[in-house]
Amino acid sequence: MPIPSETTYILNSFSFLIHGVLVMFMAAGFAMLEAGLVRTKNVATICLKNIALYSLAGVMFWLCGYNLMYLDVGGGFFGTLLPWAGDTSAVETADYSGEYTAHSDWFFQMVFVATTASIISGTIAERIKLWPFLLFVAVLAGFLYPIQGAWQWGGGWLAEMGFSDFAGSTIVHSAGGWAALAGAIIVGARKGKYNREGRINPIPGSSLPLATLGTFILWFGWFGFNGGSQLALGSAADATAISIIYANTNMAAAGGVLTVMALTQLIYKRVDLSMVLNGALAGLVSITAGPDTPQVWQAILIGGVGGIIVVFAVPLLDKLRIDDVVGAIPVHLCAGIWGTLAVPLTNPGAHLMTQLAGILAVGAFMFFASLIVWFIIDRLFGVRVSEEEEFEGMDKVELGLEAYPEFGQGSQKI
Amino acid sequence: MPIPSETTYILNSFSFLIHGVLVMFMAAGFAMLEAGLVRTKNVATICLKNIALYSLAGVMFWLCGYNLMYLDVGGGFFGTLLPWAGDTSAVETADYSGEYTAHSDWFFQMVFVATTASIISGTIAERIKLWPFLLFVAVLAGFLYPIQGAWQWGGGWLAEMGFSDFAGSTIVHSAGGWAALAGAIIVGARKGKYNREGRINPIPGSSLPLATLGTFILWFGWFGFNGGSQLALGSAADATAISIIYANTNMAAAGGVLTVMALTQLIYKRVDLSMVLNGALAGLVSITAGPDTPQVWQAILIGGVGGIIVVFAVPLLDKLRIDDVVGAIPVHLCAGIWGTLAVPLTNPGAHLMTQLAGILAVGAFMFFASLIVWFIIDRLFGVRVSEEEEFEGMDKVELGLEAYPEFGQGSQKI
Amino acid sequence: MPIPSETTYILNSFSFLIHGVLVMFMAAGFAMLEAGLVRTKNVATICLKNIALYSLAGVMFWLCGYNLMYLDVGGGFFGTLLPWAGDTSAVETADYSGEYTAHSDWFFQMVFVATTASIISGTIAERIKLWPFLLFVAVLAGFLYPIQGAWQWGGGWLAEMGFSDFAGSTIVHSAGGWAALAGAIIVGARKGKYNREGRINPIPGSSLPLATLGTFILWFGWFGFNGGSQLALGSAADATAISIIYANTNMAAAGGVLTVMALTQLIYKRVDLSMVLNGALAGLVSITAGPDTPQVWQAILIGGVGGIIVVFAVPLLDKLRIDDVVGAIPVHLCAGIWGTLAVPLTNPGAHLMTQLAGILAVGAFMFFASLIVWFIIDRLFGVRVSEEEEFEGMDKVELGLEAYPEFGQGSQKI
Repeated sequence: MPIPSETTYILNSFSFLIHGVLVMFMAAGFAMLEAGLVRTKNVATICLKNIALYSLAGVMFWLCGYNLMYLDVGGGFFGTLLPWAGDTSAVETADYSGEYTAHSDWFFQMVFVATTASIISGTIAERIKLWPFLLFVAVLAGFLYPIQGAWQWGGGWLAEMGFSDFAGSTIVHSAGGWAALAGAIIVGARKGKYNREGRINPIPGSSLPLATLGTFILWFGWFGFNGGSQLALGSAADATAISIIYANTNMAAAGGVLTVMALTQLIYKRVDLSMVLNGALAGLVSITAGPDTPQVWQAILIGGVGGIIVVFAVPLLDKLRIDDVVGAIPVHLCAGIWGTLAVPLTNPGAHLMTQLAGILAVGAFMFFASLIVWFIIDRLFGVRVSEEEEFEGMDKVELGLEAYPEFGQGSQKI
Repeated sequence: MPIPSETTYILNSFSFLIHGVLVMFMAAGFAMLEAGLVRTKNVATICLKNIALYSLAGVMFWLCGYNLMYLDVGGGFFGTLLPWAGDTSAVETADYSGEYTAHSDWFFQMVFVATTASIISGTIAERIKLWPFLLFVAVLAGFLYPIQGAWQWGGGWLAEMGFSDFAGSTIVHSAGGWAALAGAIIVGARKGKYNREGRINPIPGSSLPLATLGTFILWFGWFGFNGGSQLALGSAADATAISIIYANTNMAAAGGVLTVMALTQLIYKRVDLSMVLNGALAGLVSITAGPDTPQVWQAILIGGVGGIIVVFAVPLLDKLRIDDVVGAIPVHLCAGIWGTLAVPLTNPGAHLMTQLAGILAVGAFMFFASLIVWFIIDRLFGVRVSEEEEFEGMDKVELGLEAYPEFGQGSQKI
Repeated sequence: MPIPSETTYILNSFSFLIHGVLVMFMAAGFAMLEAGLVRTKNVATICLKNIALYSLAGVMFWLCGYNLMYLDVGGGFFGTLLPWAGDTSAVETADYSGEYTAHSDWFFQMVFVATTASIISGTIAERIKLWPFLLFVAVLAGFLYPIQGAWQWGGGWLAEMGFSDFAGSTIVHSAGGWAALAGAIIVGARKGKYNREGRINPIPGSSLPLATLGTFILWFGWFGFNGGSQLALGSAADATAISIIYANTNMAAAGGVLTVMALTQLIYKRVDLSMVLNGALAGLVSITAGPDTPQVWQAILIGGVGGIIVVFAVPLLDKLRIDDVVGAIPVHLCAGIWGTLAVPLTNPGAHLMTQLAGILAVGAFMFFASLIVWFIIDRLFGVRVSEEEEFEGMDKVELGLEAYPEFGQGSQKI
């Protein structure tokens, strides 16, 4: 018996809303993860960047991103450059043929764009200037993300080709990772990270409990990220799909954690907590392209391979002297590629070559477009703080305050 | 086609519950915001006050507040002074004419009263004694809040007059702000905040990442605060309204963030993180009186004006030598007034003079009633710790412990 | 009018999912509570243990726990030792007679097992080795918890006898508490906690705001824990039950907070924050066995008695020289017993002697089985770090890093 269409309409919309709120909270997760992994002297700045980028990304997505991504893409490359006209006076279709409210859909898509931006702030933390960073975020949320998003989720050419990326291992995570990589190349490594003899200096973060909290918040929010991407809750089939997605999302993260623990114990004779946190996130990123088709054991393995990738990609990046403060490139870019490639393993509707084509297309576009935007911003305003500012810390120089004024480096009685 | 009434009943109740849980979590947000903005020596005390006030407010609201606010108000000034008789053996109306379960409604209203109390703890932190503070909270949650709440949400005289306050810019936020202002006047400024020559000493908080976390948690919880205030989810119209509310709530906060960033950069040549956090909250408070009628761009502007208000109200309060530790008066009182006045801009059913009348009535009642209660408590027990206690910190003196025993001011090896 | 069965099916499943996500987030709550209550030198290790145990418990529950607990128990002692075959290709019963999706049920049950494991990590923190601890967690999640869970929730002999434990005061909380007690006996007290003359040295935790945050997160998650245990949302009766459960869960916690505040003020002339936090948790544990039958005032009292138990059990444990770092045994074991015994007070379907029998059966099994497992692990690998390692801190020795490298004990400029 089909359920009444008004109930379907309500349940579909409510799924967008409640799952969207979980994704919104991921902004707090990124903020805590990054605040825990930068040094004390840059903690306030990274907090500011995170709340600013979430706000700015939402406004830009309203101003041009949403319609560029979704309005009349029609198999093509992008939609229409217009602010989203979510009209509160609009009578929504009386027969519920829209399947969900316009604002619930917009809200859910809007919180996704902030995720992409959050990925970048972690990689290039501790040396990038505030306003040039936000300028990049504006371009990203208003143009770069929506254009490649239109290719797939807007019904553009990638979707027509049969590319499969359920909740965005490629469209969100590796897209953000490519932009972060371009940024890391333009802004350069932190002073002291790599010395002339090729030695790599680990720079420990200021607070591992905050980084752990951030990881748990991201894990919590990811149920909204993947579950909401079913885009409906109004039928038994939707409920079944979302249930599978929740179980697989969790188990992929667990697989990432356990694999990294085992590997770092074997290789380094010690478990590395910050690597384990990234293992959880890599597991989550890995399952995101196809959380609805694997069985539980497959989800554990897909996440576990994500963890393996992190363990090897982190030192590899260091060898390439690409300084990624929080490990966002291994987690979001590398595991995002893996997750997208893994879809055909469990989803007969996906094909490896199409997956590869999508990865390359998104990668090439996001990397080179980001590189150009970063380059222009650098030429116009400079993206990097001065050496003295970097030594003093961004908090004192850019914000004129300290994150922990009573202890830490700047300890002084008040 | 109308949906079956049992489904309506379930969805309405579930909306109260899940949105109520989000509002409950705002208690954690207030606790972290305030813990981050007080000095190390008062962190444990502010944590204790926050968990205590949340608990006490709930018990008082059960003991007398709920029925005083809702039972047989009938266009008048208050309801009935009786404990809430939420009876688990009660058969709820068999035909679902109640529209939602009694307990779900009670739960949702109960979490609101704690919010009002939380506003106060931030303003008068770092010098008010624990038990006198809690005595005020008991009076507030049991009597002051419910009485003015009855005027509007209990169907009292303000509601009859046509006052419009969707989720409580006035009834919750400015009400709490007035009580906080009265408290700040009675308890006086922290020692050292203002010196004799009129100089204002900034007193930085102990942990900006915790303050940031608290702000994100409040933002997250606000979707419950405003979304749940639709009081229903059982029809397509409700789903549409809640969707609009979610989008506008988010964008008003974003507007507050971006406005404060731009303004503090222009005025002070530096972005002020704690002001930005308050900008997000001011945006949220501003939209709370009418989140269901603005279009997205209007919500951004309404929140943005809330941010402007914070930037100017914070130094103004300091000039008046009213010491508000976390900036709760600018955020909740000032932006709450603005938000209430802004309703007629987008809601043709609201009128400026009625809004003004409601603001003044609630303001006069809450301010003077609070002033009297604070005054009586002060005479009976004293509200302020001694100078030595203030210097030593509330944690050592009132609790006999430290929030961070191994570092900070009291650093000592264990 | 009965609602359509597809809607029932969706709502039941969604209740499992959304409540399960809240329970999942309790892992973050335990992590923050424990990170705040251990010393700086062990903070990173406790974070690692928490994310590791959550992951491992889920995998073990999939590998053998779930079917051991639920598959063909038939009034007996345990089910079938088989991995859970949650097959994504399985067509779920076309007539919705399953009442909810298989994966949503599995997800909800899976997050419960991690809670049991989390209880243990707090008690035996600061001196137990990482891998032996995780070995115990694997046995617990894969075998010990599921076996006694099968007795009740799997439809085994305890359920047949009429034992009543709605959401697990006994099956989850005291079960975890017994395992923790056995662990504490085998691993012994922290060096310096008890000296030869019988003096007890308090060892304050590193961060009370993190402990407060953890408590609030647990409180937040508990609505999922108890609310989801109704196992359905598809009828008005379910919605009513869940509403009562939410209200009572909250008020029991509030009762615990206020009772501990009053008692510690009376006994010690000072309110003890960490005791208050445990009071909230004890209130929550106390109501968990029967949150659906008490009236609000009864819930406050049930939680309040839980708080009283904590105030007296914490010093009693110290007298017995059982070193429980976070107070998990008073909270989860002692209040769990009380909550189970309290069920007959409000639920005529429960009987004191049956409750007692269930408590004793679960207690005897969990305590002695855990003792044996801990003993074997100790003999095989040793459970305790060396004295030097304990003095240096687990973070440096086991992980080779520090939780707060720039301040605290290991403060060093970077």
